[in-house]
Amino acid sequence: MAKLIATLGTSPGGVVETFNFLVKEMNEEITDIYIITTEDKSVKKAWEVVKILFTCCVKQEFPQIQIAEIPSGIRDIESPEDLRRFMETLSGKIEKNDFVDITGGRKGMSVAVALMAREAEAKIITSIIPQSEYKEINERLSKISNIPQINETNCPETLKEDYCNMISKNAKTILFDL
Amino acid sequence: MAKLIATLGTSPGGVVETFNFLVKEMNEEITDIYIITTEDKSVKKAWEVVKILFTCCVKQEFPQIQIAEIPSGIRDIESPEDLRRFMETLSGKIEKNDFVDITGGRKGMSVAVALMAREAEAKIITSIIPQSEYKEINERLSKISNIPQINETNCPETLKEDYCNMISKNAKTILFDL
Repeated sequence: MAKLIATLGTSPGGVVETFNFLVKEMNEEITDIYIITTEDKSVKKAWEVVKILFTCCVKQEFPQIQIAEIPSGIRDIESPEDLRRFMETLSGKIEKNDFVDITGGRKGMSVAVALMAREAEAKIITSIIPQSEYKEINERLSKISNIPQINETNCPETLKEDYCNMISKNAKTILFDL
Repeated sequence: MAKLIATLGTSPGGVVETFNFLVKEMNEEITDIYIITTEDKSVKKAWEVVKILFTCCVKQEFPQIQIAEIPSGIRDIESPEDLRRFMETLSGKIEKNDFVDITGGRKGMSVAVALMAREAEAKIITSIIPQSEYKEINERLSKISNIPQINETNCPETLKEDYCNMISKNAKTILFDL
């Protein structure tokens, strides 16, 4: 059993695809998913979507999953102080053999979390979504102005139709297995 | 004496600012600068600009610097095979106490090179250019359709005016000093 910890940017894409790869292709048992967010409004919006994606589109097949937010408290890593705060927030949360998905968010965040993952002997992973599909998903997302805040145990049936097609069917997942 | 090795994307921004920070603020002695490029056309264009920036805007003050390209041979890290090729290209090139600038290029590349840097006990660094300035520099760049290929030892005087203002005056440089 391992955790999946993922950085998040303004697009929800990546972490669901990584989860699917891990449980379906690699037969990993993942129960806990943690999403690292920033204070950016669009990132908070993406976090609400990620919650819907897991609750509405994944939980039926994998009822054991739990998804939680790790708010980093910063907007972005733009100073040594931001980097320190970001790392303090994550300190002790990444453990040996966890999977750390660096797909989402700004580059500095991904690099910082990758270095912490390596330090903790966790595995670093990313899911690449083809540009055209990525653009399409983000365009669909930009048209939704109000993301419903849902209860994590229950997905209103109507949401499935609107959201589950935001999961890429053509993602490629890569392990940074150095 | 240490090398500065930097990933490069479609924008030349970052590596000159990192060099300036290292030699001026940290009193590091950097003589060799290596730029990791991809096969992407815009990246090759950015590489020509980086060469002009160092030759025309930096070399006068620091005549000892040498700048060279490390062509990664890939377009981007989109598969495990790309990752392997990328890492093979860099293998043995990063040494203890070198500086590795992860500012440019796609996220997967930056993460891969950061992990290799950590492995080699090199120092990981990034320069953040304010969004507005970054946009302005890239707009200026997009208007130049033909980048002159210059001899590294000599800068035609006319180029200084056109190019040296592409170096950010407000960059912030951060060491990933975990």
